[in-house]
Amino acid sequence: MDAQRIGRLAAQQEVAELATIDTDRLPHLVPICFAFVEDCLVTAIDQKPKSTVRLTRLANIGVNPEVAVLFHHYEDDWDRLWWVRANGMARVEDSGADREAALEALEKKYEQYQRDPPRGPAIIVTVDRWQAWAATGLN
Amino acid sequence: MDAQRIGRLAAQQEVAELATIDTDRLPHLVPICFAFVEDCLVTAIDQKPKSTVRLTRLANIGVNPEVAVLFHHYEDDWDRLWWVRANGMARVEDSGADREAALEALEKKYEQYQRDPPRGPAIIVTVDRWQAWAATGLN
Repeated sequence: MDAQRIGRLAAQQEVAELATIDTDRLPHLVPICFAFVEDCLVTAIDQKPKSTVRLTRLANIGVNPEVAVLFHHYEDDWDRLWWVRANGMARVEDSGADREAALEALEKKYEQYQRDPPRGPAIIVTVDRWQAWAATGLN
Repeated sequence: MDAQRIGRLAAQQEVAELATIDTDRLPHLVPICFAFVEDCLVTAIDQKPKSTVRLTRLANIGVNPEVAVLFHHYEDDWDRLWWVRANGMARVEDSGADREAALEALEKKYEQYQRDPPRGPAIIVTVDRWQAWAATGLN
């Protein structure tokens, strides 16, 4: 599967899953809404976090910035299953131009965010590896 | 959300995501079909692996048995979003009664497996922690 095809499959999904490694070295997993800004995958925290309630995914990225993101398609016809996986380095942006660009891309993709923009930080993942699989190949 | 409700939400999904930690301590992520055998989550490898081509998820579990599994629901109405996450210890069974019980549960749940049973090992996860979230609570 060529890189362009992989990127298109990933980008057209509405939801993905973000895996991080927590401070006890255990895997952590949440669903995310996401968009792409150039080659970076971006996602955002809906609520402005209180300093005392920092979300696990943000704490994890602070300690272990290496993350994995999965995009996949499920249906009863298993000949049509596929997945795309991105590995990369994540950073958290509480403010500034990169967060603004992330929010702009998210609001463009999701009308839910147009009505109620994310108020928390953005997570920006610089993807350094793509992998993909499809049950019958994707041409 | 009570434990029974969490378990029902998880079990009724057709696909979940399995996060492991690889031998480089990086997060790894694949979609899985799954079933429950008593309190254990079970999944299986479709193809009998050649000894030279051991799947990453199996190698990862051999080194780091702690895994996370995510079950989630997405739709455009974000008030209806929810996720359930299970953390636990995984083991790989290449043969024997536990693998047989896992395959039986998977074939009962998925008619695709009735037609073409998994030929590879079973992964059996003893769940030690459930967490759940819903946009508007689940009552």
